[in-house]
Amino acid sequence: MKALEERILKDGQVRPGNILKVDNFLNHQIDIQFMNEIGKEFKRVFAEKNVTKIMTIEASGIAIAAITAQYFNVPVVFAKKAQSINLDGSLYTTKVKSYTHQKTYDVILSKKFLSPDDHVLIVDDFLANGCAVEGLIDIIQTAGATLEGVGIVIEKGFQVGGKELRARGIDVRSLAIIESMSDDSLEFRPQE
Amino acid sequence: MKALEERILKDGQVRPGNILKVDNFLNHQIDIQFMNEIGKEFKRVFAEKNVTKIMTIEASGIAIAAITAQYFNVPVVFAKKAQSINLDGSLYTTKVKSYTHQKTYDVILSKKFLSPDDHVLIVDDFLANGCAVEGLIDIIQTAGATLEGVGIVIEKGFQVGGKELRARGIDVRSLAIIESMSDDSLEFRPQE
Repeated sequence: MKALEERILKDGQVRPGNILKVDNFLNHQIDIQFMNEIGKEFKRVFAEKNVTKIMTIEASGIAIAAITAQYFNVPVVFAKKAQSINLDGSLYTTKVKSYTHQKTYDVILSKKFLSPDDHVLIVDDFLANGCAVEGLIDIIQTAGATLEGVGIVIEKGFQVGGKELRARGIDVRSLAIIESMSDDSLEFRPQE
Repeated sequence: MKALEERILKDGQVRPGNILKVDNFLNHQIDIQFMNEIGKEFKRVFAEKNVTKIMTIEASGIAIAAITAQYFNVPVVFAKKAQSINLDGSLYTTKVKSYTHQKTYDVILSKKFLSPDDHVLIVDDFLANGCAVEGLIDIIQTAGATLEGVGIVIEKGFQVGGKELRARGIDVRSLAIIESMSDDSLEFRPQE
């Protein structure tokens, strides 16, 4: 998505530790008009999929999921990072490792909101090691639902997440893929 | 908002401890079409306000803020519950007490995203004791920005938050106000 690559070059800031800050339009302050362009693009690339639900994980995926869901006309469900898990059997649970925060946390989704009838599109802001997406896929599989695809705004192509997911046959589409980045350069992988 | 009251009566579940679960349309699974009706209603009730930014707190306010911002044509900023605070002076910080989780947590907002020029509308899913909204107001005041109003989807009118904020002259509008609730009844405060 050309407009996204241009926006990253204009507003993104590279920080030590392979961190790309895009917090002035994507995940702290949110440019809602631009987010609508992202939602339309996800609809375009997944146009042929039969999607019944958009799924994401709190917190930075939620705005992307909400705006995108308007173009698919389906509900959003978001997995929550658990403070405490009640073990009454009403929740799907999985574990997700966060490299950013160097810890593993529990992620939950109420069983009410995902069934074998569902066809799910996962969306998120970043794909790096893929741990968050792996956790969501684990929940989808436990629910017996169908994963239709994974829509990512920015993929760090130099980390393993995207490669591993595609190797499993999962339809991962990233609107921008960063091939390499450093303090003074940022290169995108050519797409389409 | 009549449609909201009807939806709460249809889909809401009262749980011990004054908990109202509306997680099948508002804050775990999200009915995006219905959320658009909520966004339009916030625009209607705050039509005369000059709003430059919609502000909320993660996580359940984000979808409401994102959808609502489309009707005001302004960006969203969301305050984050901090894992760790860097003390380089780039963040507004405040503390918010959570009665649900029985703890106090740090809330942060990057200083880049709120200035004295901003006119802010706060939105959130629930207002009960008002601690989250108080935290956001604290950040707005520290930034020197102007608070235009507070838009709440569901106010627990039997708790003190709404009353205290209105006593301070803050323009709080709640789309549904619950006057009382118990296992077998739920009453709304008449409005307009």
